[in-house]
Amino acid sequence: MSSYRNPTPTVDAILQKGSKVLMVRRKKDPFKDTLALPGGFVNEGETVEDAMKREVMEETALEVEPIDILGVYSDPHRDPRMHTMTVVFVAIIIGGKEKAQDDAASLEWVELAGIEKAAFDHAQILADYRQWKGNAGSTYWSTKRRSTQVDRNY
Amino acid sequence: MSSYRNPTPTVDAILQKGSKVLMVRRKKDPFKDTLALPGGFVNEGETVEDAMKREVMEETALEVEPIDILGVYSDPHRDPRMHTMTVVFVAIIIGGKEKAQDDAASLEWVELAGIEKAAFDHAQILADYRQWKGNAGSTYWSTKRRSTQVDRNY
Repeated sequence: MSSYRNPTPTVDAILQKGSKVLMVRRKKDPFKDTLALPGGFVNEGETVEDAMKREVMEETALEVEPIDILGVYSDPHRDPRMHTMTVVFVAIIIGGKEKAQDDAASLEWVELAGIEKAAFDHAQILADYRQWKGNAGSTYWSTKRRSTQVDRNY
Repeated sequence: MSSYRNPTPTVDAILQKGSKVLMVRRKKDPFKDTLALPGGFVNEGETVEDAMKREVMEETALEVEPIDILGVYSDPHRDPRMHTMTVVFVAIIIGGKEKAQDDAASLEWVELAGIEKAAFDHAQILADYRQWKGNAGSTYWSTKRRSTQVDRNY
């Protein structure tokens, strides 16, 4: 095993319906009572895509499938507890009946255009997602320069 | 800190010049003497993009910048030592003079079209990269169904 210390991997999911995205009102700290994307820690022996599906199921009772990766966010200060990194999937709902459970106090469909505050770096993630939708799927990371347009003709 | 066990995060870089990509001949096990993408473990306190830049510098003496994320590969069996996950960046060379060092026995520019064997899941990653280049930057993960075209008009 590695004898070094590494960031702890997490996953988050963006689920869109019309002009809204699904967020969970957090039951626990950090960011208790704040809106966050559904997500959580990746377990050893589990792929990141399976972790994303499991976490969304645990919190929302929805069955989802990944369709793309928006980015990987790993700023050491994004989570006050420890250095985490998150793989953010764009996903679609394929089954289940929406119900807040586990770490989610409630579920809310929030206007994507209006989200300015959210737990962790999720407001930045959703700002990037708005870019992404108009930008042929360019990917994101914490320190990416947001003003630069990626030239895909390399 | 988390009391759970998680996959250990790593990073890899795809650097293309003409029809070739840069690979390192591994000096150590696992996959000793086999070609691999430049990359390595992410340290606590370091972003994945900085880890990618540092690892490429350590192995090749090249200064690089990320331009996109190809995907995140986290099959529990991709590394015989432990469960690792890797964030694969597409990057460009912005400085430095190429020189094999650290874990790299030698550096080789390899025809992208001809790579069938490589360390870890790097042959799959490079097959995905060939797709990616023709596919407007769709992202990849270990269990993604490779035959399905992603419909971006959702």
